[in-house]
Amino acid sequence: MTAIPDFAAIKAMDAADGLRAMRERFILPPGLIYLDGNSLGVASNAALDELQRAATVEWGQDLIRSWNTAGWFDMPLALGDRVGRLIGAAAGQTVICDTTSINIYKALHAAIALRPDRSVIVSEGGGFPTDIYMAEGVLSMRPGASLRLEGVDAPNIEELIDGDVAVVLVNHVSYKSGELHDMAALTRKAHENGALVIWDLCHSAGALPVDLDGANVDFAVGCTYKYLNGGPGAPAFIYAATRHHGDIRQPLSGWWGHARPFAFEKHYVAGQGIRRFLCGTQPILSLRALKGAIDLWDEVDMVALREKSVRLTDLFISLVEAKCGAYGLNLESPRDGAKRGSQVSFGHPNSYEIMQALIARGVIGDFRAPSTMRFGFTPLYVSYADVWHAVVTLEEILRTGAWQDARFAVRAAVT
Amino acid sequence: MTAIPDFAAIKAMDAADGLRAMRERFILPPGLIYLDGNSLGVASNAALDELQRAATVEWGQDLIRSWNTAGWFDMPLALGDRVGRLIGAAAGQTVICDTTSINIYKALHAAIALRPDRSVIVSEGGGFPTDIYMAEGVLSMRPGASLRLEGVDAPNIEELIDGDVAVVLVNHVSYKSGELHDMAALTRKAHENGALVIWDLCHSAGALPVDLDGANVDFAVGCTYKYLNGGPGAPAFIYAATRHHGDIRQPLSGWWGHARPFAFEKHYVAGQGIRRFLCGTQPILSLRALKGAIDLWDEVDMVALREKSVRLTDLFISLVEAKCGAYGLNLESPRDGAKRGSQVSFGHPNSYEIMQALIARGVIGDFRAPSTMRFGFTPLYVSYADVWHAVVTLEEILRTGAWQDARFAVRAAVT
Repeated sequence: MTAIPDFAAIKAMDAADGLRAMRERFILPPGLIYLDGNSLGVASNAALDELQRAATVEWGQDLIRSWNTAGWFDMPLALGDRVGRLIGAAAGQTVICDTTSINIYKALHAAIALRPDRSVIVSEGGGFPTDIYMAEGVLSMRPGASLRLEGVDAPNIEELIDGDVAVVLVNHVSYKSGELHDMAALTRKAHENGALVIWDLCHSAGALPVDLDGANVDFAVGCTYKYLNGGPGAPAFIYAATRHHGDIRQPLSGWWGHARPFAFEKHYVAGQGIRRFLCGTQPILSLRALKGAIDLWDEVDMVALREKSVRLTDLFISLVEAKCGAYGLNLESPRDGAKRGSQVSFGHPNSYEIMQALIARGVIGDFRAPSTMRFGFTPLYVSYADVWHAVVTLEEILRTGAWQDARFAVRAAVT
Repeated sequence: MTAIPDFAAIKAMDAADGLRAMRERFILPPGLIYLDGNSLGVASNAALDELQRAATVEWGQDLIRSWNTAGWFDMPLALGDRVGRLIGAAAGQTVICDTTSINIYKALHAAIALRPDRSVIVSEGGGFPTDIYMAEGVLSMRPGASLRLEGVDAPNIEELIDGDVAVVLVNHVSYKSGELHDMAALTRKAHENGALVIWDLCHSAGALPVDLDGANVDFAVGCTYKYLNGGPGAPAFIYAATRHHGDIRQPLSGWWGHARPFAFEKHYVAGQGIRRFLCGTQPILSLRALKGAIDLWDEVDMVALREKSVRLTDLFISLVEAKCGAYGLNLESPRDGAKRGSQVSFGHPNSYEIMQALIARGVIGDFRAPSTMRFGFTPLYVSYADVWHAVVTLEEILRTGAWQDARFAVRAAVT
């Protein structure tokens, strides 16, 4: 993008946006420009309606009978298949359950059990911290196993992969920089060395087309409350390729993963296929909100979604650099849209205060320590005009020094 | 109870019921007698209102800011303390998170880590199956460790406890018979042998007074969707006595249990106290419904609750035996109310069909294989008249043989 568009040009981009009608399906608080859908996606009427029905009719009126009549028992698998469609997973390989952290734990144990003669987990020092924390939890159960980290043990993850590696746990899109990994190439590299891969899709599921089956991925996990808009803390997903199903062993062996969960048998017998990643009783109300959110995705073309995502983030970078170039912002995301997820990060020594000033003016992004401003662009509901207004607001804050107001320096517990 | 009351006497019992007003706070579907609150508790207006606010205002309008402004981040601990009050746990020892199954896994690992020179887990062969399944999952990670089961390795659990035992995992109230264990005595027996205890409170939390601190319990877990009425699949709880907090190690070491969860540090450092049982992001909408349900408990006196519970179950046993004595029902619960939770089980060779016939007539209990009819009595919303009508319906089904209708023999996936 060479010429910087003016607001008239931006309005024309919105008018031509094929996803424009989807914005109406979401509840966008008046006066807010929400660029934090990569942290918590926006509520839709579909999600709230589904939740309301689940609460008042299924729980309120039908009570225990809803396990059958409302399909509660089938939901983790049925919804899993529908999320699977968005991540390139054929049916029967994805299940919705528990949290991303816990699903990482299951996938790591399953992968290590498939490579019993190997002892190394490879991950990213700059990956989402809970990925490493869970790997450390797995290591505490596996004496002799060890962890190699990109950015600590070698500059690039590829260099860490050799014949000792059981599994590579890697983020598809970096939570911080938005950098997009080449899923097919890194998976191939791991397989060439006899290792398995687990892809963390938290920042790519619903943000761009993902092709797990096509890339021959072994396992994947991810959350549903970011780009998928499933609601705060909505249950996560886990994927395992069919070729591994017969050999999956994971220690969170609860009743829902049992081969015969209602026979009340005395010993655990793992269920067939992806079911064996299920453990305990899932939070049905949160699952039902997620179902409503997923219903909307049936109407979304992932190629069109990706095109808009790249346009939104390209536009944001261009406008920030054109209008705010004098204020010391440093682009921390890849400049090439093809190598970037649906988010843009800028560094600045006063990122915390600047972000607080933006939030006070109704532009919601987030801060990541030590000095990153992170802006997420959810193509389903972010408009090109939102991008324009966000940059105008940012420029005003930087030009006037409004961020220097003492109240913006007070850090809350969660940012 | 010697004389069998008539319906006039039963109406008088309801009129004198000190918990009678509480029934109005719950949404009882018209025409239904719900004796399955020990499987899924009934919705209250408080829970639905809280859920509605969380969905439309906190998620819908305030979005990511609600982590601070609506206290989402503090909820697992804040709600944990409030559940703690109902189970005899002083503040700072209970946290709401994940599922009962996963919390059993955490507690078992934590207990074993506290007894590194021991290798045996003791549990009940007739306990809730997921307890055993999770113990088996733990064993798969602990080569050399083993499981001893009551009813398999010895008739009574006490006989299984010796100096090799690291931890005893036991249900406070049997899900099937309703038998109530002596918590203080069994805990003492375990401690005398140097073992730790984990009490599963799924069928006692909210059903009767529990005194974890008083009984010197080490760990406890339980669910919140049965007698606590938190909603289908509402997150579970886990308790650890303060004396163990400094030494707790458990492998589900996710971001929420980190000492500094927002510093995005590269390595896991366990948080202080009960926080270290937290792992990944919790389902906020389900948590908020639970909060509404817990609000009601602030008004409940646990002694009065227990008195009504024993009266309801005594009455049910008396009426069934008086009115249905000719039809081969066999009491499978303790006859002594002091040794019984808030449920009553009867055995009959055709329990499945009889229960289906009851359900078809609006009396909801449940069936547990192979031949048990289980009836739960939640004192907050079950009336003495409910008990009367349930028994009248049961008697009619048995007398007329209505349960022999072929449609009642068709088994659904979940019963």
